[in-house]
Amino acid sequence: MRNFSFVNPTRIIFGQDTIKRLGKEAANDGIKKALLVYGQGSVFRNGVYEQVASALHEAGVGFVELPGVQPNPVLSKVQTGIELAREYQVEAVIAVGGGSVFDSAKIIAAGYHHPGEVWDFFAGAARIKQALPIYGVLTISGTGSEMNNNAVLTREDDQTKWGLGSKYLYPRLSIIDPSVQSTLPAHNTAEGAVDMITHILEVYFDGSTDVEVMREYMEGLIKTVMREAVKVLRDPADYQARAQLAWAGTLAFNGSTTPGTRGGDWATHGMEHSLSAFYPVAHGAGLAVLLPVWMRYVYKNDPGTFHRFAEKIFGITALEGDDLIVAGIDALQAFFISLNIPSRLRDLGVEAADLETMADNAVLKGSLGVLQRLGREDVLNIYRQAW
Amino acid sequence: MRNFSFVNPTRIIFGQDTIKRLGKEAANDGIKKALLVYGQGSVFRNGVYEQVASALHEAGVGFVELPGVQPNPVLSKVQTGIELAREYQVEAVIAVGGGSVFDSAKIIAAGYHHPGEVWDFFAGAARIKQALPIYGVLTISGTGSEMNNNAVLTREDDQTKWGLGSKYLYPRLSIIDPSVQSTLPAHNTAEGAVDMITHILEVYFDGSTDVEVMREYMEGLIKTVMREAVKVLRDPADYQARAQLAWAGTLAFNGSTTPGTRGGDWATHGMEHSLSAFYPVAHGAGLAVLLPVWMRYVYKNDPGTFHRFAEKIFGITALEGDDLIVAGIDALQAFFISLNIPSRLRDLGVEAADLETMADNAVLKGSLGVLQRLGREDVLNIYRQAW
Repeated sequence: MRNFSFVNPTRIIFGQDTIKRLGKEAANDGIKKALLVYGQGSVFRNGVYEQVASALHEAGVGFVELPGVQPNPVLSKVQTGIELAREYQVEAVIAVGGGSVFDSAKIIAAGYHHPGEVWDFFAGAARIKQALPIYGVLTISGTGSEMNNNAVLTREDDQTKWGLGSKYLYPRLSIIDPSVQSTLPAHNTAEGAVDMITHILEVYFDGSTDVEVMREYMEGLIKTVMREAVKVLRDPADYQARAQLAWAGTLAFNGSTTPGTRGGDWATHGMEHSLSAFYPVAHGAGLAVLLPVWMRYVYKNDPGTFHRFAEKIFGITALEGDDLIVAGIDALQAFFISLNIPSRLRDLGVEAADLETMADNAVLKGSLGVLQRLGREDVLNIYRQAW
Repeated sequence: MRNFSFVNPTRIIFGQDTIKRLGKEAANDGIKKALLVYGQGSVFRNGVYEQVASALHEAGVGFVELPGVQPNPVLSKVQTGIELAREYQVEAVIAVGGGSVFDSAKIIAAGYHHPGEVWDFFAGAARIKQALPIYGVLTISGTGSEMNNNAVLTREDDQTKWGLGSKYLYPRLSIIDPSVQSTLPAHNTAEGAVDMITHILEVYFDGSTDVEVMREYMEGLIKTVMREAVKVLRDPADYQARAQLAWAGTLAFNGSTTPGTRGGDWATHGMEHSLSAFYPVAHGAGLAVLLPVWMRYVYKNDPGTFHRFAEKIFGITALEGDDLIVAGIDALQAFFISLNIPSRLRDLGVEAADLETMADNAVLKGSLGVLQRLGREDVLNIYRQAW
C-alpha cells in the first residue's frame, strides 16, 4: 500500500421519499436563495422538479433556475449559470439531475467567486480557492459526481473536454432517491452501469501492489453493479436492485477505492473525453467501446491482476496465461453488449477520418495512463482497434 | 436496502513517516495550544511521543499532557483531562494511542464545553452540543475510533461501561502510520483483529435484507483482516500486511458498512462492555469469547446469512443446513483460538458467581440486540455458555 490521504465530507441522504428533506436541510444551513440547475426536462416528467420546488418553497428557500444542461455539459451554459448566480446573489447551487448537471453546478459554484474566465480552472491557469455550497438531488446514477470533488466540462469552441478536481467541489449534501430512476430509459441505466464499472477498473488496473483490501472491495462492487444492472434492466421498477446499483455507483467513484493504490489509470476516461467532445456520444457508451480495447492493449504490464479479474469476476478457471486474461476481457465486453451498448466506434457514428484529430486532442495535456503511459500513437492505435 | 444517511468528515493521513505532518496540519487550522492525551508509556518506547512532540514544537503548537489513560478508559481520568484542558484553555485535544486514548480524548473534547457532569452524556441526561476539535495519531488498530464518532467509557463507582455517539466526536484528522505498530505485543494485534471482525459481523448479522452490496464489502474486509492478521503475527515487521490490517480496521467501523442495513446488532458489544467493566479484560479477548456463543444462540433468526458466512468466509461447501452454520461458527472460533486468545470466560479470570451481576448490568439500559432482542435471561444464558 502506498501512503495516502483520504477525506470525503459529502453528506448523503439515501432512500425513498427523501427529496422532501432538501428544503429544510438547506434552510438549516442558512441558505435563503439558490440557483437550481437541471437538464432537459426529465425532472418534470418524473416528478422530481415538483418535489424539489415544494421542498424549497416550504422551507422558505428562494431559487432562480438554470434549465437545459445537456449530457457532456458545455462551457457556455456554465457561464450563463455564473451570470445568473451573480445577478441574483444566490448563496448555494442546487444540482437536480445526473452527472452533467452536478458537474455544471460545481463549476458554477466555483466560478461565482472567480473574476476571470472559468475555463482557466481547466487549463491550469487558475486554481479554485472557494466555491458556493453545492447541494444535489441525483436522478441518474453513474458518474459518482454526487459524492466526489470532480467535474468535467467541454469547451465548444475547440471541442476540448477536460476534467478537474478541487476540495471545494464536494457537494455539501446529495440526496439519492433511487425510486425516481425507475422511469429512466434503459440506455441511461446501462450507460451508468458501464461508467461505474469503468471507474472501478481504472483503479483496479492501475498496477498497484499490496492492495488486496481494496481489490476485494472493488470486486464486490463490480459484481454488485453487474448483478443489479441486469435486474434493473429486466424490471425497471425493482427498487431494491435500483438502490443497490445506485449506492454501488456512488461508492465506485467517491474516493473509497483508491486508498493505497496509485490513484487510478484514467487513460480510458481520457480517451473517452476526447471522443465525446467530438461526437454526441454518451459517456458510458464510449467507455464500453474503449475499455476492453485498452485492456487488451495494456494487460501485459500486470498479467497477475488481469488473471485475478477473469477468475474473481467471471469465475473462469479452465484457462490460464494470456488465454485466461483474454477470456476475462471478452466476458466483460460480452456483458456490455448484453446491455445493448454498441461495441465499435463506427457503431457510435464515429468517422475513421476523425481518429487522428481525436488522438491529438486526447494527449493535449500530455500522455495518458499509469499502468502504461500512452502517447499519441498508442491512443490512435486504440481508437483504430476500437473503430 | 433501508433508507439511510451517511457522512464521515474525518480526514485520514495514512502511511509511513506521516506523523511529522501533525504539527503543520494543526497549526494550519489555527491551533496554538492543545491537550495531548496518551496511554501507559508505549508511546515512549515506540518513538511516537518523540515524533509527535517534535512535529508540534516545529509548528509552534504548544501542549499540556494527560498521560496514563488505561485500556477500558475510566471517567476519573477524563474528568482530570477536562480540568487540565480548561485550566490551560486549550483549543484542541490530540489523542496519541489506541481506542481508549481516542475515546477519552473525544469525551474530554465534548466535556470541555459542558457545565455539568460529563457522565450525563452517557446516562442520557445531557446531549453533546459542541466539542473541541480532535486530532489523533493511532498506535493500535482495532476499535476504529480514529474515524468514527463513538466513544466508550467506564464509570468506576458502579462498574458501568457505556457508549455514545455524536456528530461532534469525529476526529478532524487522524494520522495512521502502520509502521509504529510493528513493536506491539502480539496479543494487542490479535485483540485488535478480533475487534475488527466483530465490528463487521455485528452489522453483517443484523438481519438486514437486500444489502448484497454491503455483504460483499464486509466479506472482503473480514477476509482481509484474517489473512493480514495471520501474516502480521508471523512477521510483526511486515509493513504491507500491517498497513492492510490497519486500513481494514478503520473501514470496519467508520460507518461504511452500515448503509442500507438495520445499523448493526451490537448485542455482543453490549455484553462485552459489561464484562470488561467488571474485569480487567481486553475488549478483543472478551469479544472473541462471546461472539461465537452469541452466533450459536441467535442464528435461527437468519439462517440464510449464516449459511452464506460459512461458505464465503471459510469456503465450507460439503455441509448444509444447521451443520453448515455450526461449522462456520466453529471455524471462526478456531481462528480466534489460533490467535492465542482464550475461548472461555473462565480462562479470562471470570468468576461464575459474577455472571448474574454482569447480566444485570448489561441490560441496565434495556434489552440488547436487533437480530434477536436479548433480555437479562438471554444474556445470562450466553454468559453461562461462554463460561
